[in-house]
Amino acid sequence: MTTHTDCELLDRDDALAFARERFALPAGVIYLDGNSLGALPVHTAARLADAVTQQWGTGLIRSWNTAGWVNLPQQVGSKIAALLGAGEDEVVAADSTSINIFKLLAGALKLAATASKRRVILSERGNFPTDLYIAQGLNEFLGGGYELRLVDGNIADAFDDSIAVALITQVDYRTGHLHDMAKLNAIAKQAGTRIVWDLSHSAGAVPVALNADGAELAVGCGYKYLNGGPGAPAFIYLAKKLQSDFATPLAGWFGHAAPFAFDGKYRPAPGIERMQCGTPSVLAMLALQSGLETFDGVSMDDLRRKSLSLSDLFWKLMDEYCGQYGFACVSPRERAHRGSQLSFAHPQAYAIMQALIERGVIGDFRQPNLLRFGFTPLYLRHVDMFDAVTILRDVMTTEAWADPRFQQRNQVT
Amino acid sequence: MTTHTDCELLDRDDALAFARERFALPAGVIYLDGNSLGALPVHTAARLADAVTQQWGTGLIRSWNTAGWVNLPQQVGSKIAALLGAGEDEVVAADSTSINIFKLLAGALKLAATASKRRVILSERGNFPTDLYIAQGLNEFLGGGYELRLVDGNIADAFDDSIAVALITQVDYRTGHLHDMAKLNAIAKQAGTRIVWDLSHSAGAVPVALNADGAELAVGCGYKYLNGGPGAPAFIYLAKKLQSDFATPLAGWFGHAAPFAFDGKYRPAPGIERMQCGTPSVLAMLALQSGLETFDGVSMDDLRRKSLSLSDLFWKLMDEYCGQYGFACVSPRERAHRGSQLSFAHPQAYAIMQALIERGVIGDFRQPNLLRFGFTPLYLRHVDMFDAVTILRDVMTTEAWADPRFQQRNQVT
Repeated sequence: MTTHTDCELLDRDDALAFARERFALPAGVIYLDGNSLGALPVHTAARLADAVTQQWGTGLIRSWNTAGWVNLPQQVGSKIAALLGAGEDEVVAADSTSINIFKLLAGALKLAATASKRRVILSERGNFPTDLYIAQGLNEFLGGGYELRLVDGNIADAFDDSIAVALITQVDYRTGHLHDMAKLNAIAKQAGTRIVWDLSHSAGAVPVALNADGAELAVGCGYKYLNGGPGAPAFIYLAKKLQSDFATPLAGWFGHAAPFAFDGKYRPAPGIERMQCGTPSVLAMLALQSGLETFDGVSMDDLRRKSLSLSDLFWKLMDEYCGQYGFACVSPRERAHRGSQLSFAHPQAYAIMQALIERGVIGDFRQPNLLRFGFTPLYLRHVDMFDAVTILRDVMTTEAWADPRFQQRNQVT
Repeated sequence: MTTHTDCELLDRDDALAFARERFALPAGVIYLDGNSLGALPVHTAARLADAVTQQWGTGLIRSWNTAGWVNLPQQVGSKIAALLGAGEDEVVAADSTSINIFKLLAGALKLAATASKRRVILSERGNFPTDLYIAQGLNEFLGGGYELRLVDGNIADAFDDSIAVALITQVDYRTGHLHDMAKLNAIAKQAGTRIVWDLSHSAGAVPVALNADGAELAVGCGYKYLNGGPGAPAFIYLAKKLQSDFATPLAGWFGHAAPFAFDGKYRPAPGIERMQCGTPSVLAMLALQSGLETFDGVSMDDLRRKSLSLSDLFWKLMDEYCGQYGFACVSPRERAHRGSQLSFAHPQAYAIMQALIERGVIGDFRQPNLLRFGFTPLYLRHVDMFDAVTILRDVMTTEAWADPRFQQRNQVT
């Protein structure tokens, strides 16, 4: 059996141990939900307080220039680009993930339409719902002429010459399955189509190499592993070579080549700036910028090593301490296919997660029967894995409803 | 000549004098740009600090429920509805003004398309650029089958049976001209079409009666008169009777009837919630909520009376103290057609505004030759009008370049 001391030893060798101090973590909590909402960085409160009282309160409208508000979407985008293997002028922070998916899907369909009569939007049935909703809304808006084709099996086998665009989330939000981006991009290219990548569960969680892996279009979330705060701005990546020809229907003034010239005619900015739409939320941008600084000096290889070390350990501890309670891991055993999370199916998943949260171990319940645990390499320790799993064991041994004999009548609806 | 004492007397009778203390205004500044970015409310800094350290830092993911984050867009929307003569379930805070215009234009075109073959989107050539850009982007995306018809004269005369939808900003961002909403809605109805109202320069600035005046569709800005902070969330109004049939192409998960059921199929929420798209920025929503509290207990009739008293006075002082310097007011003399701002044309407008700002009088320069002054009734005093105009007189008398003989060679490009 793995002991607490074994875990302490692993923490002693942790190349990222220094990063934990960059977060203001509450006492008595083991936070395994950074994949839903990243923890608060220590500098964010002061950063925002200054932005509110000095930049807004005293600087007022002048701060758009004097405090550099107008450049925040590009600056924050550049910082995200560095985490994703993208050029600094290929990413901008803007809007929400949902809206950015709409921009890219719409633009990609337009590019495809000029070249062919392809009428299929390809995705996975298990993709995150908002991705599928946006594709549905877009298709209905265009008169329903596209087919949203959802595959259950291996999406790599579904590329053919009917595909106008594919929408793929790199790390599955439930199972944590990690797609091989380079391979799928090559297959898509071979099939004459493009992939819109959703990096919501991979940005800041696993090494991403957008340029090297041939990605052209991607979006992602600012409030998960990037620690940007609740509902933080999302980001959008558009490969340099596509920028001058890419059109989004969301042609707002912040995407204009000269927003403050107040021209009556829309003329998109030459570069990545064109992917913006309306006025960005300055306070939210500054919180995201502060969140991104928690990655300063962090090697993505170290991050990946730590992430896998945590998930390997968690899984091993689950086998050792909770093996008899009927948890079935639905995440990939193979490391190359694993994101930075593990999910376990259990018929009592909802009630068990509630009991864990009451005891300070915060994970997620996901429909229909999953306990989801996210491993944020910047602030989690190996001892946290030990404590979380042994607390879970305590739940299973002390809560009457967790006893299989009681499950029938206490079924959570 | 009107004296400082005259202005002090007007302030003594000001029914809204109490509201100035609700703002943290910097010393030495007369802020006539609340129509561009509202001033900082005194409670916002503490509200945000608590949201960051307690709700996010300590509550973490739990705060979506325990701190009520998930209901913020509706709660903030209800508070805005109360300022606009709308039902509390007819407004939601979401996204940016640009994106909300897209939602409403797209949905209105779809409604129109089911009823007729109307192919014209009607607007004013002087409408705020992003409104026109969004209409252009939408039309191009739909294949260019619509005509964006921009009128220079009276838009009331441009309604006929070719109009699919009209997009009208109630208060013009440059001149401050205020449209008669009830009259235009009646004309639109008579012509069998609808108006999407942009209330960016009217919400919180003039009384708006959406229900009583027959408005069905409206958007507006959270960071101007509503004091929500730089880039604050915008809002969207959809009349109750349209809600169940109205579809937006931006079908994100926060507009779903059950966002956390993770259904694969989009099913819009029954009410105003369907106008949301992605995850809202919680910090930005809380700042906007705090901004809206500056209107607590404020009668919109008092607000209008104060607004007109300020602009009447400013205009009079301009005539008295700056009459000889070539300023030409481009705003409506008639009070019924005037928003809460005045704009003055001057060949040296840009340089003059820079000089004013250096002296602590903050207004806006707007292309091509306008000095724009916004009058926020909640925090401006009549003495501020006096001080601003006399400082402007000082600029005109002391700056060499302001002398007409120097204008030729100091022309601002």
